[in-house]
Amino acid sequence: MRNDTNRQVILTSRPTDIPQAGHFELRESVVPEIGNGQFLLRNIYLSVDPAMRGWVSAVANYSEPVALGSVMRAISVGEVIESRHPDYAAGEVVCGLFGWQEFALSDGSEVWFKHDPALAPVSTALGVLGINGLTAYFGLLDVGQPKAGETVVVSTAAGAVGSAVGQLAKIQGCRTVGITGSDDKVALCREAFGYDAAVNYHADDLDSALAAACPDGIDVYFDNTAGRISDAVYRQLNVGARCAICGTASVSSWEPWPDGPRLERHLLVKRARAQGFLLFDFQDRFGEARTQLARWLNEGRLSYREDVLDGLEHAPGAIARLYAGENRGKLLIKLGDAPG
Amino acid sequence: MRNDTNRQVILTSRPTDIPQAGHFELRESVVPEIGNGQFLLRNIYLSVDPAMRGWVSAVANYSEPVALGSVMRAISVGEVIESRHPDYAAGEVVCGLFGWQEFALSDGSEVWFKHDPALAPVSTALGVLGINGLTAYFGLLDVGQPKAGETVVVSTAAGAVGSAVGQLAKIQGCRTVGITGSDDKVALCREAFGYDAAVNYHADDLDSALAAACPDGIDVYFDNTAGRISDAVYRQLNVGARCAICGTASVSSWEPWPDGPRLERHLLVKRARAQGFLLFDFQDRFGEARTQLARWLNEGRLSYREDVLDGLEHAPGAIARLYAGENRGKLLIKLGDAPG
Repeated sequence: MRNDTNRQVILTSRPTDIPQAGHFELRESVVPEIGNGQFLLRNIYLSVDPAMRGWVSAVANYSEPVALGSVMRAISVGEVIESRHPDYAAGEVVCGLFGWQEFALSDGSEVWFKHDPALAPVSTALGVLGINGLTAYFGLLDVGQPKAGETVVVSTAAGAVGSAVGQLAKIQGCRTVGITGSDDKVALCREAFGYDAAVNYHADDLDSALAAACPDGIDVYFDNTAGRISDAVYRQLNVGARCAICGTASVSSWEPWPDGPRLERHLLVKRARAQGFLLFDFQDRFGEARTQLARWLNEGRLSYREDVLDGLEHAPGAIARLYAGENRGKLLIKLGDAPG
Repeated sequence: MRNDTNRQVILTSRPTDIPQAGHFELRESVVPEIGNGQFLLRNIYLSVDPAMRGWVSAVANYSEPVALGSVMRAISVGEVIESRHPDYAAGEVVCGLFGWQEFALSDGSEVWFKHDPALAPVSTALGVLGINGLTAYFGLLDVGQPKAGETVVVSTAAGAVGSAVGQLAKIQGCRTVGITGSDDKVALCREAFGYDAAVNYHADDLDSALAAACPDGIDVYFDNTAGRISDAVYRQLNVGARCAICGTASVSSWEPWPDGPRLERHLLVKRARAQGFLLFDFQDRFGEARTQLARWLNEGRLSYREDVLDGLEHAPGAIARLYAGENRGKLLIKLGDAPG
């Protein structure tokens, strides 16, 4: 189960835009020895997330930039293979910030939650039962507060977060409308994720396409994009609408800060709300949400897609792949098998 | 108490910008006879409000535009002088949409609330105990939700709404910072309305002036202006900030729709909320709010200023006067004396 070599992906130069394979190097180091209060984790799946672009940026963000020469920060799920920590036992599966590497030493501070493989496959701890599903859950239900019969618009709708948002909104009894970036993904939204309608944001006239998809206006907007996609949505908000701002993926740079149509008047006239949120403000409720999400998953009401690359050597190019929209589901890198 | 002539201010042409005296005419008509279910009101004070600009505009707004040739829509407070309506008795004082005229016939549908003159002077029903105070009350307390020790910024701070917001925030134990348009009004904010600091928005460097006034950042923003004033505020929001959008007075036109720095990223990174509101969504709580506001008023914790013009002939030019910022307090037109 254990060898002496720990292969790691190291950040070697700082991207100014989307991180590419060339910004990283594979390095071999020695698997560390554990001390008291520590455990050793064997990574099973590594996650590839849009947030990684921010993590390697020199610009201040939610967290400190990843230092040059160090292991790339990443969310992963793995098995505890040796422990001198009272809260973690060998054989347990945990999810957290263990980095793009085969083995990680931890004192527990990197752990987000334990995952019970009986609940759902280990890989879901990085997706629909991990930050993507949790982001959808709290952003939609707590910030967006959809009510049955309302229209919920999601940008972008076919991604790991958006696909969960659309399905959760459907479970709430809402009309769901997805905005996505290709005709293939429009079809995916309708067929795999149950959206009532889906719109390609490359449409010549996005306003008209959105109006046709939302004949009763828009009550809840789950926003992963900002920019011109959001501009079209804000023009069609209903009175009392709620916009949950989760990301700004369509805006390529905030230096210089971009202009757009002013939101204030839409918010005023429609008595609407726009609210940003951060998943980790809800950390004390992860257990509740994962239990509920697993129930819907096991009832067949929540489906997900994964795009799994096999082997650590795929990690360096994976962020660029994600930003190019080439993945068809949650992008994961598989390093090994689940326990048992 | 009653004569046969009812002097009225009639809208005679439609302004494209700020309404001027020339858009109105004084006309004399006959005081109407009341029928069953009606009462006749003698106006005591007429209100002059920023919303009147919207009411005479051809552009769709909250309400139908005032028709050319009809009495100018206005909030007023007056005395019931004759009644065949079961809910209104002669001698009662009521506030509502009775128009710029000496006498108004009503079936009760124009009434917003009754005012007890023992509570506070009749004129306050149009200001601090009327829509201005109520707007401050619900916008600050319900939408802004300030907590003791937080910093509350108000634009514009010396007006009829803003001056009440600043004082209510102070009562909540907040640090209050006013943004206003002249050095005189900066002094007024500090001396009359108890702001901890005040900033002139004509400052060369509004961002720096605001930063100096808000050393701990901004937790609540009560926004009457939108535009570049708001842009400076959004750049200094704290995590978890709440912005209550009450008006967009600094934006002279929404045709074409103006651009500004995108808000989405501020809201996301600060997990902040921007929310428009309309006073009349809180109409079922006016009684509660007026009781509380009157208590603070009578305890000397809430002060207000009025700028009273004597006689109906001042009404036609009053909206332009308001938009020019020439008034020093709630702008009112006095037509007669309170009862008793």
